[in-house]
Order: sequence, then structure tokens, then C-alpha cells
Amino acid sequence: MDYLTFPSSETPFLESYLPKDKANNDLPFTTLTFATSLDSSLALSPGTRTILSGPQSKAMTHYLRSRHDAILIGVGTAVADNPGLNCRIQGVGGYGGEGLQGQPRPIVLDPSARWEINDGSKILQLAKEGRGKVPWIITASGVSISEDKKSLLESHGGKFISLDIIEGKGFDWAELLRCLKSEGLESVMIEGGGSVINSLLEPQFQYLVDSVIVTIAPTWLGQGGVVVSPKRRFDGSGNAMAASRLKDVKWHPFGEDVVLCGRIGQ
Amino acid sequence: MDYLTFPSSETPFLESYLPKDKANNDLPFTTLTFATSLDSSLALSPGTRTILSGPQSKAMTHYLRSRHDAILIGVGTAVADNPGLNCRIQGVGGYGGEGLQGQPRPIVLDPSARWEINDGSKILQLAKEGRGKVPWIITASGVSISEDKKSLLESHGGKFISLDIIEGKGFDWAELLRCLKSEGLESVMIEGGGSVINSLLEPQFQYLVDSVIVTIAPTWLGQGGVVVSPKRRFDGSGNAMAASRLKDVKWHPFGEDVVLCGRIGQ
Repeated sequence: MDYLTFPSSETPFLESYLPKDKANNDLPFTTLTFATSLDSSLALSPGTRTILSGPQSKAMTHYLRSRHDAILIGVGTAVADNPGLNCRIQGVGGYGGEGLQGQPRPIVLDPSARWEINDGSKILQLAKEGRGKVPWIITASGVSISEDKKSLLESHGGKFISLDIIEGKGFDWAELLRCLKSEGLESVMIEGGGSVINSLLEPQFQYLVDSVIVTIAPTWLGQGGVVVSPKRRFDGSGNAMAASRLKDVKWHPFGEDVVLCGRIGQ
Repeated sequence: MDYLTFPSSETPFLESYLPKDKANNDLPFTTLTFATSLDSSLALSPGTRTILSGPQSKAMTHYLRSRHDAILIGVGTAVADNPGLNCRIQGVGGYGGEGLQGQPRPIVLDPSARWEINDGSKILQLAKEGRGKVPWIITASGVSISEDKKSLLESHGGKFISLDIIEGKGFDWAELLRCLKSEGLESVMIEGGGSVINSLLEPQFQYLVDSVIVTIAPTWLGQGGVVVSPKRRFDGSGNAMAASRLKDVKWHPFGEDVVLCGRIGQ
């Protein structure tokens, strides 16, 4: 079976950054996680999938998925990667475990409903094999969704959710995350792509992130890649300042890569 | 005295990346070293100095300087930072040691001779106090240099060196490094800024780099910074490929930062 294992010797360094109970909060525990090159690129170019990090980092990502109720990506990544968006850690549902236990709910942000999900999509194939959940797709209020896609999703336990967007800015992250919490998702792992990550790191949204887990590979992809770098931020006097700082930082060398864990500072 | 100390417990991880004898080679041992944010920025904007890394990383930089015959920067950094470009590790010349032992020769790449070095420049003040060497400034062949600057430099043991430039591309790194070796410099530590680093990481030059030592701080500076990211590179079929990969990689967590040591791969 094509499962992955993440050695238990490697879990302690992650533990304090993993979801905790936020029961009296209307927001889910939110983890931001992704892998970049030294020049902060996720991929060589939009629409291409670039393998950056090593096998250990891949297993870590799947371990992290097993610890979250949901994983969230933007539609660009869904279209480019045809991703499985499931968890393949040994012992979770479909990989030696019962039912769908440990399988996160995939959430795809698709404001204009452009993702052509169909029977051939990897995510649906995995769901049919009992190895993952069918996605929830978040679209902008008022966008029309084809009945075919709607019934395809619903027949396998997925659904469309519509939410207002801020004119020209996309979803309001606070509203989006509150919506997911109200749907019973206690923890969300946000995986990419670039525009999702950069948007979440903007000053008005970054407080929503409880943990950051970034893998860095010892490679420069070069100019023109899909770069993680938040919008420029200015202080009260109009001077440029760092867009975001991490606190409670831990670095964990991991194969050829390094894993950085932290929380958003003030 | 305002010296820095770098604990001997921290030196072993660096040792295998430090200069070795290249006696039968017409090139010096070349180390590329710099500090960036998570989004690969050296500074918030050109011409500003941004403190990114912590005090331990600063002490490491000065320790590395003590292990090299020369340190090299571009004129943009010289103009922006008014840097000291000396070594302040306890025990080197001027900081408890004899003469100028352990003080590297500062090399400034200034093709158009625009750096207005004068008596007030920090680098000259330190040299007059016996705490550092006067720079050698590399200019493009044919560029005129004011007699004042020339005699100022020469009166303190510095000099101008002129080298041909490649039309529209700047210095040829191989020729430049050979020139430094022929001047008796067995090792060169290249510190920045962005255009110097990106140029050295281009495919035709990166083989000249023996070691890479990068410090990464857990901060995103945001878009618009001075970014380290080499030019886009393509394979034989015209597909984008990673611009540069490191091998023999070691990651060393260091205070809030991480230090990455490696060599340029093939």
C-alpha cells in the first residue's frame, strides 16, 4: 500500500504548533504551511508543480494533514496540480485505518467556480476508493454553478458554499474561517498557493493564523517563480517595515531541508 | 572595547566550509555569504540598511571575516551602509591582537568610480585607528578616477585596480577573482549586495563559489525589497529549471535565525 510514515521521533518538535482546542472561539485553529526555495518560490511558474522538498518533508505534510480537520488551497493550485488532498499516513482511514478517520476535509477557494472537477479528478477517485474526503468548494455569492458539478460533488458527500467577497480583494479571511468553524471544522491547514498565502499574511488577516510551518529547500528557483512575499507594509510615519515577523521560533533540520515553526508576532 | 566574541562551541559546524589551501589554483577560495528574510530580501529597499539577523549571526559574520584574506561588496552597499568592513572579533588586529592580523582586505566593486570615499568614511576612520585595512576599489578600465581619491586611498595603503568589464554585464567574475589571487589574496568572502550575489549565482559564474553560508531570519520583509534570486535558468529543451542547487548541506539553528552552509551543486 502506498502509505507514508512519519517517524514518531520527529513529531515532538511539531507538537506545540499543532491544533489545540479553541472551543470558546468562533474561529478554527489555523495553520499556515508550505514549502519554498531559498528565494521564497513555491514553484518555477504559475500552473507548474515543482518538487522542492525531500521525501521526509512530504511525509511531514501528510502527518500535519492527519492532525487537522480540513486542508485549504486556492483554485490555482487545484487546477495546476490535480491534487489528491488526502492524508496517506499509515493508520489513517483508507491507509490501514477505519473509515475516513484522520482524513481532512479538502476546502478549495474558487470564487468564480472555474475548477472543472470531474470523475477523473484525483480527489474524486481517492474519495471513491475510501481514501479521502470530497472537497467543499467556496465560491463567491451570486456566481452560478453548473448543476452537473453540484450533483457530482453532492453525490459523494461534498458541497459548494457561497460567501460574499470583498470587491476586488477576494474573500474576507475572518468570515471564511468563521464559516468553516460553524460547519464543524475545528482546525484548518492552509497550504497554498502563492496568492492565498500572501493574502493571509497581510496585516489585517495575519492575526487569524495560529501557527506557521514552513519547509525551506536549499535551492534557488530563480526569478519568475511563484513567490511568497506579502504586500509591502508601512509604519505610522509611512516608512516601510517588515510585513510579518515570527515569534516562538523553532528551526528543525530535516534531511536536506529545514522546517521552521513559529507564530505570528505583533 | 567594542569587540565581538564567537563562542568556540559554534565554530565546528562552519569548519568544513571555511577556506582551504588552493595553492595550485589561479583562483582564491571563494565564500558567498549574506543574510536574508524568509522572502529572500537583504533589505527593505535599495539604499537602506535593514537589520535582519540577531547578534549571534553578526558575530558569526565577523568570525568568518577573520578567516578570509578579503571581503568583497558592491558599490551600492558601500554607498548605502557606510560600512566598516573590518573584523571585530576579540583577538584580531585592533581588537586585542597584533597589527592587522586577521583583518581582511575590503574590496569594493565600483565600475564607474562613483563611491565618494573620504576622510569621514567609517572604513578610513577604522583604518587610521589600526582596526582595519583600507579598501581596494575595482573600477572599469578607462574610467577616470579623481586624483584626490587616489591619493587618499594610497596614503593609507589602499589602491584602485582597473579591470575590463563585459559590455552591459559588469565584471567577469573569473577574471576578477584571478586578479585578486594574483594580488596575494588566497580567500575572498563575498557579502553583497543583491546585484553582486545574483550575478555570482548565474550559471556561468556559480562554479567559482566554493562555499555558501546564508543566514535566514524568521521575518517576511514584503514585496519591494532587495531580493536575492538569480536569473531564470532553462534546460536544453527550453524549460525553466532551478537556477542553483546546494549540496553538502548543513542547517544550523542559531538564536532566532538559521545558518545554511553548502556548496554549489552540479
